[in-house]
Amino acid sequence: MTELLAYFEKELPRINGFINEETDKLEGLVKGVARHVLLAPGKRIRPVLTLLTARGLGYAKDDIYPLACSLELLHAATLLHDDILDDADLRRGVKASHLVFGTTETILAGDVLLALANRIGAGYGKSRISYIMADGIMATAEGEIREIAHISEPMVNRDTYMDIIIGKTARLIETSCRMGAALACDDLAVEDSVGNFGLNMGIAFQLVDDAIDYESPSDDTGKPEGGDLKEGKVTLPLILYLEMLQDDQAEELLAAIKSRTLSDEKRDFLLAEIRKHDFGARTRQYAADYIEKAKKCLEPLPDSAECRVLKQAADFVLTRSK
Amino acid sequence: MTELLAYFEKELPRINGFINEETDKLEGLVKGVARHVLLAPGKRIRPVLTLLTARGLGYAKDDIYPLACSLELLHAATLLHDDILDDADLRRGVKASHLVFGTTETILAGDVLLALANRIGAGYGKSRISYIMADGIMATAEGEIREIAHISEPMVNRDTYMDIIIGKTARLIETSCRMGAALACDDLAVEDSVGNFGLNMGIAFQLVDDAIDYESPSDDTGKPEGGDLKEGKVTLPLILYLEMLQDDQAEELLAAIKSRTLSDEKRDFLLAEIRKHDFGARTRQYAADYIEKAKKCLEPLPDSAECRVLKQAADFVLTRSK
Repeated sequence: MTELLAYFEKELPRINGFINEETDKLEGLVKGVARHVLLAPGKRIRPVLTLLTARGLGYAKDDIYPLACSLELLHAATLLHDDILDDADLRRGVKASHLVFGTTETILAGDVLLALANRIGAGYGKSRISYIMADGIMATAEGEIREIAHISEPMVNRDTYMDIIIGKTARLIETSCRMGAALACDDLAVEDSVGNFGLNMGIAFQLVDDAIDYESPSDDTGKPEGGDLKEGKVTLPLILYLEMLQDDQAEELLAAIKSRTLSDEKRDFLLAEIRKHDFGARTRQYAADYIEKAKKCLEPLPDSAECRVLKQAADFVLTRSK
Repeated sequence: MTELLAYFEKELPRINGFINEETDKLEGLVKGVARHVLLAPGKRIRPVLTLLTARGLGYAKDDIYPLACSLELLHAATLLHDDILDDADLRRGVKASHLVFGTTETILAGDVLLALANRIGAGYGKSRISYIMADGIMATAEGEIREIAHISEPMVNRDTYMDIIIGKTARLIETSCRMGAALACDDLAVEDSVGNFGLNMGIAFQLVDDAIDYESPSDDTGKPEGGDLKEGKVTLPLILYLEMLQDDQAEELLAAIKSRTLSDEKRDFLLAEIRKHDFGARTRQYAADYIEKAKKCLEPLPDSAECRVLKQAADFVLTRSK
């Protein structure tokens, strides 16, 4: 894990420096929004993944940072729009942008960040990079769409849940990895291996995120305790609990959760039940399976320091508690 | 003008066919929104401009239609997001999407259409195409941002107005033309000529649009009579009127317009005044100057049937009454 931490420590200043510079150039109305979401404490996992995959495949040039950061811009853009859609209160531990700056400013800031990322990507003179980026944005938007569409369904099963988390999280992490591969080489098979590493790691990342929501208190995550439950979001720990119930009981409970009409007492009871049955830990176990798959995807790649760090990054996903 | 109409008649079925097919493949939640805005009667001026510029520069391949249509997808995406920002009631003569389908669905549909256009563009294997597209989206979003920022300024002058219409309309028309040139050749000087044709024509297009708002009744345009005035939008016909007033009178009137607190009587009076002074016609005269500039930009290009149609298209902009 030491190499991973050292890698982050080495690269974060350049990543943050570029993001700081680029957002500072934006038009007044959206600059505040962009900086609010992008300069809030973040893990920068997407840019680091682009750096690691490209370097691991032998790309040595220094012009890589804008491309790596474009993934963070894309991610921020999707957060901005999603927070409006979900009417979320908090993001990365700070008040959601649309509540601070207004919906208009937040929609526009998202659009500008998407366009900026696309322009940065197109500047590398490789149309494959633009294609991967557009495809990643498309998949992420479609994931959000399916998540919203599923809200009105009476039941949510594991397949639906997987479909949603792949769309809303894993595909953009896949994109981050593919991007590094596409910059470093023109070998689609290599790009696919690296992309599948990202996809599986992204799934694990979201599974752990969803487990955390049932584990830790608000102060650590910047998220409200049991926030997903409050927001009517159905994630794996809850699905595992619903699977224990009779169909009609499960549907009734789910309807109350989705319509946000669950009483505080019932919610507290539900949180306690899910904790008692260790469904958070079970969710983490599934995440571990995906991390194993992810690491297998790296096997065809040449061994390198970056490749080892990528494996460490995958393992690190499982240890997160906030 | 016969050649222009024949060109539209010949090309519209393929353009509309592609848009119909592509929007039909979208996810359920956004399909309705996309089809609502994209299948409403529209002039398809942007796709036709891409076709004309590429063909005029000798591009003969049939694979051009998706790229041409991607400009219409981009345009629709900006309309969807703008209508939320402006809280508009009508668009292309039909109820605005967010009022029919909801804000969430409309934001997402805009995001998906942007991504789809980018993915189509990237599919041509020329990174210049992706760059032009991203730059056009960026400029359009920044134009919208500046329009909103200007709302809070006490006065609006012609420079501000020009800045806004270039951003919100002309840059995407420039993009449509640049795209055709970039597909057909790798000559940046030619691309610039064609781009400047589009920019000037786009400015004229918006000037005429703003003139129309003070000319024709609601039934023809699908827009409310004096709709811009009602929505607190400051366009050239109004600026020409404000220029006749004392500074303090102008500022007071402008404040009432922007805050939408103008009484019906005062608005009717203002509409009558602007009509009496022919400020719509004056605005059209400015548009005519830009059309002249636009046509000059085409001079370095080889003569062709498409080049003649482009000039006709420019002239046609001036004759629009709805």
